[in-house]
Amino acid sequence: MTGVPAEELVAAGYAWEVADAPLLHDSLNLADLAHAVELADRTVLPDRARQTLLGALLDLASLPSDAVDYHPEHGELYASREHHLAARIGSEAGWLRAGRTRREAVRIAFRITVRRQMLDLIDAGVGLATAIAEQAERHISTVMPDYTYLQQAQPTTFGHFLSSFADPALRDAERLLAEYRHINASPAGSGAANGSRILDDRDATARVLGFDGAVEHTRDAMWQTDPFLHVLTAATSLLLTQDKVAEDLEIFASAEFGFVKLGDGHCRPSILMPQKRNPYALAVIRGSTGVLIGRMAGQAAVMKTPSARSDNLIYSYGELPRALDLACRVTRLTTAVVRDLAVDAERMRSALESGFTQAADLAELLMERFATDYRTAHRVVQHAVRPNEDARSALDAETVARASADVVGVPWRLDDAELDTILDPRALVNSRTALGGAAPGSMAATLARIRQRAGELGAEVEIRRHAIDAAETALRVRASELAQR
Amino acid sequence: MTGVPAEELVAAGYAWEVADAPLLHDSLNLADLAHAVELADRTVLPDRARQTLLGALLDLASLPSDAVDYHPEHGELYASREHHLAARIGSEAGWLRAGRTRREAVRIAFRITVRRQMLDLIDAGVGLATAIAEQAERHISTVMPDYTYLQQAQPTTFGHFLSSFADPALRDAERLLAEYRHINASPAGSGAANGSRILDDRDATARVLGFDGAVEHTRDAMWQTDPFLHVLTAATSLLLTQDKVAEDLEIFASAEFGFVKLGDGHCRPSILMPQKRNPYALAVIRGSTGVLIGRMAGQAAVMKTPSARSDNLIYSYGELPRALDLACRVTRLTTAVVRDLAVDAERMRSALESGFTQAADLAELLMERFATDYRTAHRVVQHAVRPNEDARSALDAETVARASADVVGVPWRLDDAELDTILDPRALVNSRTALGGAAPGSMAATLARIRQRAGELGAEVEIRRHAIDAAETALRVRASELAQR
Amino acid sequence: MTGVPAEELVAAGYAWEVADAPLLHDSLNLADLAHAVELADRTVLPDRARQTLLGALLDLASLPSDAVDYHPEHGELYASREHHLAARIGSEAGWLRAGRTRREAVRIAFRITVRRQMLDLIDAGVGLATAIAEQAERHISTVMPDYTYLQQAQPTTFGHFLSSFADPALRDAERLLAEYRHINASPAGSGAANGSRILDDRDATARVLGFDGAVEHTRDAMWQTDPFLHVLTAATSLLLTQDKVAEDLEIFASAEFGFVKLGDGHCRPSILMPQKRNPYALAVIRGSTGVLIGRMAGQAAVMKTPSARSDNLIYSYGELPRALDLACRVTRLTTAVVRDLAVDAERMRSALESGFTQAADLAELLMERFATDYRTAHRVVQHAVRPNEDARSALDAETVARASADVVGVPWRLDDAELDTILDPRALVNSRTALGGAAPGSMAATLARIRQRAGELGAEVEIRRHAIDAAETALRVRASELAQR
Amino acid sequence: MTGVPAEELVAAGYAWEVADAPLLHDSLNLADLAHAVELADRTVLPDRARQTLLGALLDLASLPSDAVDYHPEHGELYASREHHLAARIGSEAGWLRAGRTRREAVRIAFRITVRRQMLDLIDAGVGLATAIAEQAERHISTVMPDYTYLQQAQPTTFGHFLSSFADPALRDAERLLAEYRHINASPAGSGAANGSRILDDRDATARVLGFDGAVEHTRDAMWQTDPFLHVLTAATSLLLTQDKVAEDLEIFASAEFGFVKLGDGHCRPSILMPQKRNPYALAVIRGSTGVLIGRMAGQAAVMKTPSARSDNLIYSYGELPRALDLACRVTRLTTAVVRDLAVDAERMRSALESGFTQAADLAELLMERFATDYRTAHRVVQHAVRPNEDARSALDAETVARASADVVGVPWRLDDAELDTILDPRALVNSRTALGGAAPGSMAATLARIRQRAGELGAEVEIRRHAIDAAETALRVRASELAQR
Repeated sequence: MTGVPAEELVAAGYAWEVADAPLLHDSLNLADLAHAVELADRTVLPDRARQTLLGALLDLASLPSDAVDYHPEHGELYASREHHLAARIGSEAGWLRAGRTRREAVRIAFRITVRRQMLDLIDAGVGLATAIAEQAERHISTVMPDYTYLQQAQPTTFGHFLSSFADPALRDAERLLAEYRHINASPAGSGAANGSRILDDRDATARVLGFDGAVEHTRDAMWQTDPFLHVLTAATSLLLTQDKVAEDLEIFASAEFGFVKLGDGHCRPSILMPQKRNPYALAVIRGSTGVLIGRMAGQAAVMKTPSARSDNLIYSYGELPRALDLACRVTRLTTAVVRDLAVDAERMRSALESGFTQAADLAELLMERFATDYRTAHRVVQHAVRPNEDARSALDAETVARASADVVGVPWRLDDAELDTILDPRALVNSRTALGGAAPGSMAATLARIRQRAGELGAEVEIRRHAIDAAETALRVRASELAQR
Repeated sequence: MTGVPAEELVAAGYAWEVADAPLLHDSLNLADLAHAVELADRTVLPDRARQTLLGALLDLASLPSDAVDYHPEHGELYASREHHLAARIGSEAGWLRAGRTRREAVRIAFRITVRRQMLDLIDAGVGLATAIAEQAERHISTVMPDYTYLQQAQPTTFGHFLSSFADPALRDAERLLAEYRHINASPAGSGAANGSRILDDRDATARVLGFDGAVEHTRDAMWQTDPFLHVLTAATSLLLTQDKVAEDLEIFASAEFGFVKLGDGHCRPSILMPQKRNPYALAVIRGSTGVLIGRMAGQAAVMKTPSARSDNLIYSYGELPRALDLACRVTRLTTAVVRDLAVDAERMRSALESGFTQAADLAELLMERFATDYRTAHRVVQHAVRPNEDARSALDAETVARASADVVGVPWRLDDAELDTILDPRALVNSRTALGGAAPGSMAATLARIRQRAGELGAEVEIRRHAIDAAETALRVRASELAQR
Repeated sequence: MTGVPAEELVAAGYAWEVADAPLLHDSLNLADLAHAVELADRTVLPDRARQTLLGALLDLASLPSDAVDYHPEHGELYASREHHLAARIGSEAGWLRAGRTRREAVRIAFRITVRRQMLDLIDAGVGLATAIAEQAERHISTVMPDYTYLQQAQPTTFGHFLSSFADPALRDAERLLAEYRHINASPAGSGAANGSRILDDRDATARVLGFDGAVEHTRDAMWQTDPFLHVLTAATSLLLTQDKVAEDLEIFASAEFGFVKLGDGHCRPSILMPQKRNPYALAVIRGSTGVLIGRMAGQAAVMKTPSARSDNLIYSYGELPRALDLACRVTRLTTAVVRDLAVDAERMRSALESGFTQAADLAELLMERFATDYRTAHRVVQHAVRPNEDARSALDAETVARASADVVGVPWRLDDAELDTILDPRALVNSRTALGGAAPGSMAATLARIRQRAGELGAEVEIRRHAIDAAETALRVRASELAQR
Repeated sequence: MTGVPAEELVAAGYAWEVADAPLLHDSLNLADLAHAVELADRTVLPDRARQTLLGALLDLASLPSDAVDYHPEHGELYASREHHLAARIGSEAGWLRAGRTRREAVRIAFRITVRRQMLDLIDAGVGLATAIAEQAERHISTVMPDYTYLQQAQPTTFGHFLSSFADPALRDAERLLAEYRHINASPAGSGAANGSRILDDRDATARVLGFDGAVEHTRDAMWQTDPFLHVLTAATSLLLTQDKVAEDLEIFASAEFGFVKLGDGHCRPSILMPQKRNPYALAVIRGSTGVLIGRMAGQAAVMKTPSARSDNLIYSYGELPRALDLACRVTRLTTAVVRDLAVDAERMRSALESGFTQAADLAELLMERFATDYRTAHRVVQHAVRPNEDARSALDAETVARASADVVGVPWRLDDAELDTILDPRALVNSRTALGGAAPGSMAATLARIRQRAGELGAEVEIRRHAIDAAETALRVRASELAQR
């Protein structure tokens, strides 16, 4: 083999891989340093080469990615790095190849990049749940209609509505945390896939880079793809929750609803229409969700290939980090949108009054008071309000009695106080006192639990972040020592 | 409203929903029985109605789904059931509506259906991992080339190759088990979404149906979709692992490779070509994987809709159970294929001999023996075999020395015994003794761990299966008692 | 080979294939009749066998699919049919195998099924465009705000809004028609894929079944998949247009907007909440769109497999017809929804009056009248209305002059008549007279063009439908003659 | 509104949009020049502003995109450009806003970018089909086994095998060409979506930019998305064809098959294993196909949003051009791979000899000669070769006669010459003389047709490329003239 790639291959393959340099450069530095340190520790690397190689690697690690000549003509990232090192230290650069495929180097780097992004995304998800809980607390008593099919259903509070998005966010944060242990596991020491003859303490190698341990089976370690699909799905799922928030808020922010106003910083004006104040942030959230759905489907489609083919992974190296980065930015945006939301309690209250969201509770009352089955009670209520929809507000005991007389032949007579209570939206909300219901007391307990869970997850993230920070720092220190010895 | 649906709506909407009857009928029976029992226990249901309603529900529960007139003209499933009951017990059927939306009924049923399928799928995944481990044990010493890019890489064993698919299967089984707690959680008592006034002990209601507890926030309980996406992704991921097995085995089963032969029962003959023996099972596995990828993408796309719209869930009621059923069948098929595989150790060995998969180990030896960097050693080995590819088998110490003289100017002389050892594929495999490597000792430990983990997961499934069996039985007994009192 | 399939293969593979029987039975009858007729015409089939075989095939063709024992234990559909025939006519059934693989038989049938569905779907798309045009005509002068980001932008008419969905529907109808020629092309005579020795007039064979011709390259003919992806994408795209209609109408049907009311037959009541009138049809349209997106992604994922593997096609035989059937039903539903829509012109008009959608036109007027750049004019208008948003309705020449004085230092004085004209929404709509604009005259021309194009496409469908009807009838007649000779 | 975007919005939204600057800069220049020219021609733009504005736009157009301060802090691309112009010419920059939304500007630019990429991709598809035809011509007589399920089926030629991928490529080229007319249509003059008052000759405006005409309905013009999904699907479909080529060639390039060797420039060595020669190009093709499937699904998911929301399009501005660019690069790579392929006719021939791909033809011969149904003949052939698979090569008339005696009770005696002919793979290939069959004569005709069609499509591309080149040039000239007048 000449080793000179065809220009079409450079353009379609190497250029694609090299575009990932900004995402993987720092992580490749760590992977290479760890490998060189291990070669030194096992005395595979002779003393003379140790200093030279580690010195050169530390120099390389001090450069930002765009100061390194990552170039498709050299091949993928590893090849550019070897080229860089060889230009500086000649054949001593060749020691870095000992006992390791280039794919092992890049896969380690890939996981180092992704693990940190995962922690950031979990943090962002936790931040979103917290912002939701805070905004919900402010509106624990702000009554509004709950909608299904965008038709008014029953009275609720804006706090109850909004906080329904907190648990989904926390669930995805938890899933990401569960998946983290698969991501933060080391493929090092896999050799070509059958294991390495010379690097045989795989758990030790793993710990040097802050991994929780080695992926046991070396062929699985080298070629596994399933964790990446699950990480991407969790990110997609987290955005799908936000998509719903965005779709709902856009409607609520219309002049016709008038329930909420987005912060100025989340809108954009029109250059043509002076009166416009466009909730652009919501379009960003929705569109990004669509993009993530595609990334998830694409990840799965890429994985549909035989085992041990490069395409299993090289198409994730950049795609996954970029998708996680987008998910993280969008989650922070949704958090800010929720935090800065202005709520118009008056419009919400007034919408509630123009509907008849108390109908089911009235029917329930009739069922209870007159020992009739619910379906019949339901028919009576329908009949009571049907003749004149505007009469809803004027609904009184007499009307109900007339309706029941028509429907079941018996006038059901409620006393007016009882009827007033059942027709008062706030009283109705206050009756939802069971677990997770809209009554302020229930809500308060639920919100407290959400904030506590968010706090716990945040703490879990911190523990992991400190662990990898510490390992990465220790590795750099050790490499410097070895380079100077 | 007339309540008479347009024919186009029946054809596009209700017909779609009613097609799920065979999947949800049994679960709807349980959901309705539990609701009626709760209404009775809380004395919402008067005594006279209790007997009638529970009796009718028990009768309905004794019918297979195709004996019930589930018909799109009535509306969705709930409407057909109410129609069925009303035809038998008249207005007493109307009590079943008390305190519950139809969507709550169907969502409970949906989860009852899905939880059992999940346990089956976990079982199937565990079964696959076990079959892989068993087959791998038989071939722990069957040497073959490992491939990357379908080019021979290094010697390995068929056991090591095959067992690399066990851990991915177990990981997805574990993910499904983790997700089970979200699926086996009850939405009951959510009212319209703000909570119910009359059914307020949601955890008790949950336990009656064998749920591990209630989903706390009632609006989340009513509308959550994220668990369904994750279940589907885990099923898809489990099939993606099998897709790789199928793609690899198809190649290995070709006459040109000749490594394996599928069991007769997994092939199909050609009606045209008498000589054919087509590994149809592998096409089934691959195609089903593609179908699942689409179901996963579709689930996500369906979820991209505002909150509290019916489309959030009615398009999962049937899609998810059908996808899980397919995944389960396919996983059992792959299990059988692996179990019945005939391995031709001779062809594997012979393929190994015609290649030069020992090259990297030889280069490593040169690196170690002559204190040269690996890249240089790599060049020497390339040079040693390049002039005549057929010379690989005839590679001797002299050739190596000549090559090194050409490349680095110094003849590197190995003794022949040393060279023979490094060129012996079996010895080379035996040197991969580190964690998860191909050496029989490492393999044995890994396979033992796989079988143990499979056993543990299987036991977890059994615990859950017994719990839901017990709850469902107890509910039926209790309903019968109440019906007869 | 024993030919007895393993039970796992039956459950995962053959059961999947056999589930397509209702979709393919009639088409398989046609494919088999055509093959038998051709064998007879070429005297491959001896006279004695001709009568027997054709007679049995005609009998089989007279049965509905559920009267035939299509059963997975026999294998796929072809095997069940051969089993059926052999039980009736013994070894003479074996003639049907001559010169044809089973896959060729099913692929021909598949195309026969799909081509008819495509014509139906084109018809449905054309019907939708026509219903839109008709409803739009009724509201060619019904002014309403146009929205972007669901914020009021400029005045338009409901006719202009609604008709914006007609052309996308027509484009997809056209794409389906263009793709029809690839679908209605015959793979017959492909042999194993290299061509047939005995059936060598492929175009004649094609025409017998109403195909427009043969797919030329026999391996392409046997294995092509691309047309099926494109058909599915066109169906998905057609639904995506309807998804937008459904999302928009759901908002417009809310009490808060109050612009439209769906027909009773397209809503469903709540069993819990007596006041509800849920636009269920819109949820059906949206959810089905999500399902189709998944089917499209799944089709592509299935196709990502090597050539000439069964999974290339057997996973489309049922998936594609079911997806097209759903698309067709949903398109008819959307058509009915559009047709039966009640429009509240008063609410639309009143929404328009509470906003300030004339702002851009006012700025344009200032630009023209005072030769100022648009951006400055835009700032003046913003300034004029900013202090008091409610002042919009009270905007007068004096306010504008004061604003311009503040912003640019010069009072721009309009006369009141001029200002009134620019602030009159109807006048503003009437000024959009260019191609495709909202002015009634432009609209009328556009709607006429839409209706004409719809008519043309409908006629194209009819021509094709008659052609395949005629061919299918002629084939049945010819087969009967040969059976009786 | 302050107009200062929140930092989270900048990070998630504007940064995403601004990343598209390199893709859209040149096209935005054209769109802005055309708009300014039209404003000048209609004398909306006063003389003094005309020179200034056009001069500044021409200066901007002369800069590469990275010399312009496209920066998310300014907002999306339009805002950065306005910022750039205002810094140079002050308020005269504000004229550019007249009669046009920013979204109209970007959408025009988007189409200008995409149309050129489409022509490139059609060209690439045509180039692929041509390279396939050329390589196929060289191997019109190179016999090899055709495979189904990767089991040998019947004899064919490498030319017939390879050329089966040409027509799918041409079909997608044709689809792209058909879609081109939807892409190369102008949205200009749409105003906010209801049409423009001041720019009312939309077809003239369209032609200035080389568009074939205006999209008629202004709201459709502004918001349509369907063409972009179809373009992406055609690109995906084109790659799916190449995926199959890549999957097949990887198998054929294995040492075990040994049918083909990729050019050196399309392989990559291993840094660990000296003997490796990895067909990396094939992994690139497959992985890119998976990526495109995801982009297609993502495009559809993004489109699942209400009408007239920005997310309908801003997530396509960059996604689509990048996907098309990847598709184009990959298609050129596949073309090069096919062109540089070395074919080992000897290995192909030898594989053919070790199988029994003549079996069906032998059965056909028995059917014809002994007037027996094919199924019985099939059984006889199976019987003749079953006892000893190696006996295939030694199959003689006597064996056949014995087999038929066993199976049907009558010895069917062929003469040896007849048998020899039917067992000669080359003779068998030569018998496939019908349309599109493998016989050299049929092949030659098919290849000629492929080359002709490729030529025609290439010519169609050239016509369109010249048209847009000419329009773009003319626009620049006209703008220069107006700037200097």
